[in-house]
Amino acid sequence: MLLANARLAIEGVNLEIDGGRFPAKVVAGRPVAVEADIFCDGHDSIDAAVLHRRRGADDWAEVPMEFLANDRWRARVTFPENDAHELTFLAWRDLFTTWRKEVAKKLAAGQNIGLELEEGRRLLQAVEEGEPDDRAVIDRTLAEDDEAEEQGHRFARLNAPEVAAAVRRSGPRTNLTCYKILPVFADREAAAFSAWYEMMPRSQSGDPERHGTFDDVIRKLAYVRDLGFDVLYFTPIHPIGRVNRKGRNNSLTPEPHDPGSPYAIGADEGGHDAIHPELGDFESFARLVEAARAHDLEIALDFAIQCAPDHPWIREHPEWFDWRPDGTIKFAENPPKKYEDIVNVHFYRGAIPDLWHALRDVVLFWVGKGVKIFRVDNPHTKPFPFWEWMIEEVRAEHPDVIFLAEAFTRPKVMKRLAKVGYSQSYSYFTWRNTKAELIEYLTELTTGECRHYMRPNFFANTPDINPVYLQHSGRPGFRVRLALAATLGGNYGIYNGYEICEATPVPGKEEYFNSEKYQLRAWDFDQPGHIQDDIRLMNHIRRTHPAMRDFTRLRFYDAHNDAVLAYGKSTEDRSDFLLFHVNLDPHHAQTFQFEVPLWEFGLPDDASVEVEDLLNGNRFTWHGKWQGLELDPQTRPYAIWRLYAPGMPR
Amino acid sequence: MLLANARLAIEGVNLEIDGGRFPAKVVAGRPVAVEADIFCDGHDSIDAAVLHRRRGADDWAEVPMEFLANDRWRARVTFPENDAHELTFLAWRDLFTTWRKEVAKKLAAGQNIGLELEEGRRLLQAVEEGEPDDRAVIDRTLAEDDEAEEQGHRFARLNAPEVAAAVRRSGPRTNLTCYKILPVFADREAAAFSAWYEMMPRSQSGDPERHGTFDDVIRKLAYVRDLGFDVLYFTPIHPIGRVNRKGRNNSLTPEPHDPGSPYAIGADEGGHDAIHPELGDFESFARLVEAARAHDLEIALDFAIQCAPDHPWIREHPEWFDWRPDGTIKFAENPPKKYEDIVNVHFYRGAIPDLWHALRDVVLFWVGKGVKIFRVDNPHTKPFPFWEWMIEEVRAEHPDVIFLAEAFTRPKVMKRLAKVGYSQSYSYFTWRNTKAELIEYLTELTTGECRHYMRPNFFANTPDINPVYLQHSGRPGFRVRLALAATLGGNYGIYNGYEICEATPVPGKEEYFNSEKYQLRAWDFDQPGHIQDDIRLMNHIRRTHPAMRDFTRLRFYDAHNDAVLAYGKSTEDRSDFLLFHVNLDPHHAQTFQFEVPLWEFGLPDDASVEVEDLLNGNRFTWHGKWQGLELDPQTRPYAIWRLYAPGMPR
Repeated sequence: MLLANARLAIEGVNLEIDGGRFPAKVVAGRPVAVEADIFCDGHDSIDAAVLHRRRGADDWAEVPMEFLANDRWRARVTFPENDAHELTFLAWRDLFTTWRKEVAKKLAAGQNIGLELEEGRRLLQAVEEGEPDDRAVIDRTLAEDDEAEEQGHRFARLNAPEVAAAVRRSGPRTNLTCYKILPVFADREAAAFSAWYEMMPRSQSGDPERHGTFDDVIRKLAYVRDLGFDVLYFTPIHPIGRVNRKGRNNSLTPEPHDPGSPYAIGADEGGHDAIHPELGDFESFARLVEAARAHDLEIALDFAIQCAPDHPWIREHPEWFDWRPDGTIKFAENPPKKYEDIVNVHFYRGAIPDLWHALRDVVLFWVGKGVKIFRVDNPHTKPFPFWEWMIEEVRAEHPDVIFLAEAFTRPKVMKRLAKVGYSQSYSYFTWRNTKAELIEYLTELTTGECRHYMRPNFFANTPDINPVYLQHSGRPGFRVRLALAATLGGNYGIYNGYEICEATPVPGKEEYFNSEKYQLRAWDFDQPGHIQDDIRLMNHIRRTHPAMRDFTRLRFYDAHNDAVLAYGKSTEDRSDFLLFHVNLDPHHAQTFQFEVPLWEFGLPDDASVEVEDLLNGNRFTWHGKWQGLELDPQTRPYAIWRLYAPGMPR
Repeated sequence: MLLANARLAIEGVNLEIDGGRFPAKVVAGRPVAVEADIFCDGHDSIDAAVLHRRRGADDWAEVPMEFLANDRWRARVTFPENDAHELTFLAWRDLFTTWRKEVAKKLAAGQNIGLELEEGRRLLQAVEEGEPDDRAVIDRTLAEDDEAEEQGHRFARLNAPEVAAAVRRSGPRTNLTCYKILPVFADREAAAFSAWYEMMPRSQSGDPERHGTFDDVIRKLAYVRDLGFDVLYFTPIHPIGRVNRKGRNNSLTPEPHDPGSPYAIGADEGGHDAIHPELGDFESFARLVEAARAHDLEIALDFAIQCAPDHPWIREHPEWFDWRPDGTIKFAENPPKKYEDIVNVHFYRGAIPDLWHALRDVVLFWVGKGVKIFRVDNPHTKPFPFWEWMIEEVRAEHPDVIFLAEAFTRPKVMKRLAKVGYSQSYSYFTWRNTKAELIEYLTELTTGECRHYMRPNFFANTPDINPVYLQHSGRPGFRVRLALAATLGGNYGIYNGYEICEATPVPGKEEYFNSEKYQLRAWDFDQPGHIQDDIRLMNHIRRTHPAMRDFTRLRFYDAHNDAVLAYGKSTEDRSDFLLFHVNLDPHHAQTFQFEVPLWEFGLPDDASVEVEDLLNGNRFTWHGKWQGLELDPQTRPYAIWRLYAPGMPR
C-alpha cells in the first residue's frame, strides 16, 4: 500500500451510482447540486472543488465548493453540453485560512503574535506565480507589512479579504487529494421534461374502414400541438406479420381484412427498417417528420424487438432464434399461455455480435430518418448488457437520442434499466391512486437515490393499460389523473382517447375493448364531455412555469382530508411557486383545511400571501397559514395556485 | 464497451463498503448473512453463490445462496480464519429449473409436452462431467426415460428432486456472471465482543505516596478477573517528559515530585519503545503479560503518538516536527489554548517515510512483547492514510492485533477511522442518556450501513470523561449505565473507580478531580457501596449467553414509560432470548407496562412464556403480551429476563 496518498477523505458523493459503475443523469444547461462529504484529520481548514469535463476533453472546469454542515460540501454545477461528462473532486488543506482563524483567536485573547505574523508572511511568500493580479496583491501586502507597526494592524493587513481571495485562487493546495472519476450523462431537457401524446397512425383516417396514413397524421398535428404536447409517439409502423395474425380483441381467429397487431413486426414487405405499406413510404414519413418539426412536435417511435413468424430475419438469420427439437421455431410464451404471432430473438450464442449490431443499426437507421426518441417495448425481457452497449453506441454519435423504457416489472429491474442508460422509465404511477400511495411513491422517486438516474414518465393510460380507476371514475377521474400525471411528473403522457374519457374495458381486465391494437378505430375527440381544456391548461402551466421543470422539487403539504393531495413545486429562489390541491375522489365533493406553506418564504404563520388561481386568473390574498376549500369532482376536481411572496414581482 | 459481459445484475451488496474501497468486518468463525440483489432480464430461473477465500489463497469456497424476496438473495457465510479475506458473487441462468417450472404449468393445463420432454432430455445430456454421483443419477434417469410412457410419468422422472439436485451441483451455469472482488476482514472475536477494565499502573500500589509497579498490577489481576473482564487496559507506560510537566489537576506549576501526565511521552530514559523506570522493566512487563494470560486476561496498551518536549525523537529526528521562525519547536495548541508539555509530529514532508515506519515499528515492538490490543489516543488528529497503511502493515503479519480508536469527534470522521481499519471505536454512548437518544443511536449503530465496519466500544467512563449524568446520579446511576454499556454493547468498558461510584468532578467540567492523569492515587474498591456484584453479573451474563455476542441482534420493545428502556437480544434460533428493562431515572421508582415479545417466538398475543429472572434465578410464567413491573433505582434499577419458548429446553 502506498504511503501518504489521499490525505483528505472524500466520500458519500450524491451523483455516484453504484460506486461509479453507472452515470448519474443531469440536464445539460440546468444547474445541479453536486455534494460530497469532505474532511481531513485534525482541525485545520480545508477547501474543495468540483472538476468536470466533457468526456474526452483535455481540460477540466473547476467549480469551488461551499461547506454546508456536518462535513458536507456542495457546488452548483452546470454541465453545458448534451453529452457524456466526467466528474471528480479536489480537496486540500488550506494553511492560510487555518493561520487566519488561529491567529485571530490568539489576538482576541491578547497573546503576542509576533512569531505568528512571521509565519503568515512565510505562507504568503510561498504562493507561487498564479493569477498575476493575485501575485500583485500579495506582493503589495508583504511590502506594506511593517514590523514596527502594532500587531493588530499588521494582522488586519495580512488578513484582508482581498489577500484571502488571492490565496484561495492562487495559493498552494497542501495535501491535494483527488477523487476517482465518475461518469455523468447530460441529456437535453426533453429527457427530463416532456409531455407525450400517443396514437396509432393507422386509426387517424377518421373512417374505421380506411387504413390511416402518415398524411392523415400530418392533418392531426395542429390538434396535438394545440393541446400543448411536445412529443407525438407512434406504436410500431413496420410491416405486420400475416402468420398467426391476431383478430379483433386479441382473438386467434382473424377476419381476412383484420390489420393485426403492430407489435407482430415483420412480413414479406420487410422488418424493423421497413414501413407498413398502408401507412405510407419513406417519402411520406419524411414529410411527417418535417411537418411535426414545423409544429414544434417531436416524433417518437416504438422499438419492439420481437418478430412476427414471417419476419425476414427468421429466414436470413436463423441463428438469432430458438428452434425446437422438431425443427419448428419457438414462439413467445408465458406458460401455459402461448403467443403464436410473436417470436423472440435470443441475444447470445450465434446471435453475438451480428444481432446486436443489427438492432443498433435499426435504431441508427431511424435516427437517420430524423427520429430522436424511442419508446422501447418490454426492455426488461432483453439483456441489460445489450441495452448498455446499444445506448452507449447510439449516443456516442447522437447524444440527443432519448430512450424510454416500457418496463412494468419489479422495482430493482426497472431501476437497473435506468442505470444502464434509459433516459426515461414507465412507472407505477398508473396504479398509485390513494393519497398514501402517491406520497410514498413520489417521495421515493424525488428524494431517493434513484432520483439521480431514473426519470419516470407518468402515463395516465396506454394502449395496454385501461386503469381500473378510470373504468369507474367517469370524466372527473380523467381530469384528476391528468392533473396528477402532468403536475407530479417531469415527463408524462396520455394515449389518445383519454381526452374523451374512453374507458370501455374488456370485462374484468385492464384492457380496452375493441382495442386499436387489433383493429382500426375512428375517433371524434371533439365529442361532448372531452377534457381538452384541462389538457391545454396543464401543458400551458408546464411550459410557462419554471417551477415545473425539475420534478424532484416536489414537496407534499398538509391537507386535512385523506382524499385530497396537496403539494407544491417551486424554483430554488421561490420566484415561481405553485401549490396544488387534487381531490382524488371522483365521486364526492371534499371539503378540507389546508396549510399555506408560508415557511417556504420565510414567513410566520400569521403572514399573508398573494395568490393567483391559475384556473381562472383570479387574484386575492390568503391571511394566515390555514385556509379552507371545497373541491367538487363534477366542477372543479383540482386547484392550482401561484403564490407570490411579499416583494416579488407579479 | 464489451458485448455480452455480465448478463445478470448483481448489486446492493450488504458487505460492500464505499464500492469495495474498504473491507467489511466480520468475526472469524461466526456466520454472517451475505446479501445482494441478483436478477436477470426476463422470467427465467436463476441461481447464485457466494465465493470467498483468504486473501492470497488460490481456491475459492462456494456457498449457495437462497432467494429471499424482491430480488434479494442471501447466504450464511463463515470466514474461518482470523485474516484478510476476499468475497465475490456468482450468478447464472438456471435453464433446467426454468424448464421444470414451465413444463409443470403446461402439464397442469393439459397441454401436450412431447417436445418439452425432448428439450428436457437435451438439457440433461448437456450436463458435463461434474460430481461423479451426479452424472450417474442423470445417466440413469435418461436411460429409464421411455418415450412410450405417459407424459406425466416421464416428466415426474425427469423432474425428480435428486435429478434437480444433481443438475444444481453439476449442471452448466449459463451466462455465468461474476461480481467484483470485495475485501472482508475477519477479526478474532475479541474485536467485536470484549469487556475492558482500564487502570493506571502507577496507582496500583495501594499507597498514594508510592509509585505503583507492574508487580503491583500482577497482584490486582485476580480482582479484575473475578469481576469477569477480558481486557486490562493501561494508560501509557513510557517515560514521562520533564519539560513543562503538568502538576496536579492539570496545573502549570508542578511540585517537584509530581509524576506528570503519562500522555506526555518521552524523556531521557527513552520514548515510545521504553518503559517508565518507576513502573518496572521489560522483565517485569513480561511477567505481567504472562500472569495476565494465566488469568485469561489480555493486556491492552495505549498508543499515543504525541511527544514530550524531551522525547529523544526531537533530537534524533527534528524533521518529524514543526519548528517556528525563531527556531523553537511548535507545541500542541487549540488556540488560544496551548499544551506546552506536548508536541505533535507531522506526517508529511521530511517525515515520510521514516516517521511512518518508526511508528509502525513501535506497534510491532510491543506486539513482540506479547501485546495484541492497542487503544489509540486521538487518532482523528493523525492522517487517515497513515492508519490505513499502518494497520494493514501490522495485520499482514499479525492479523490478531486489535486497534481501538479513541476518537470523540464528528460522526463521519469516526466512521472513516473505522473504515480505514480500526477494529473498535469509542462512541457517543457515554453521552446518550435518554430513552429517545439511546434508541436513535443504537438503531443507527446496529441497523445502519456502519454496522458492517464500525464496532463501538461503550465506555461508561474514562480518565478523560466523568459524565455529567454520573456526577448527579449516585450509585443507582452507576448501576444503570453499567447495565446499558454491558448489555447494549458488544464491546464495553469501565475505568477504575467506576465500581466505587467515583464521580467527584473538577467543578463545572466532565473531568475527575484529583485525576490520576496528574498524580498517584490509591484505591479501595471494596469500600461500602461498591457495585462489584453488578459488574460480576453483567460479565457473567455476557460470557454465558450466546445472545450477547453479536451486538447488532438488538431489538427495542415497547414499555409504556419514557424513563424505561426495554430491549431484547437473541440468537437467530431464539434458543437464547434475553429481555432487558432499565430504569434510566436514577432518582425515582418507575412503574410501567411492557410488551412481552411473544411474536418473536411465533406466539399469539394471549400465549404464555416461561421466564427466568437472571438477577435471582426465579422462574415463573408470563401469561399474555402485556405485563407490569416496577423498577426502583435504590434496589433494582434494571431487570434481565431469559425467555423460554414452548418446547425449548430449560
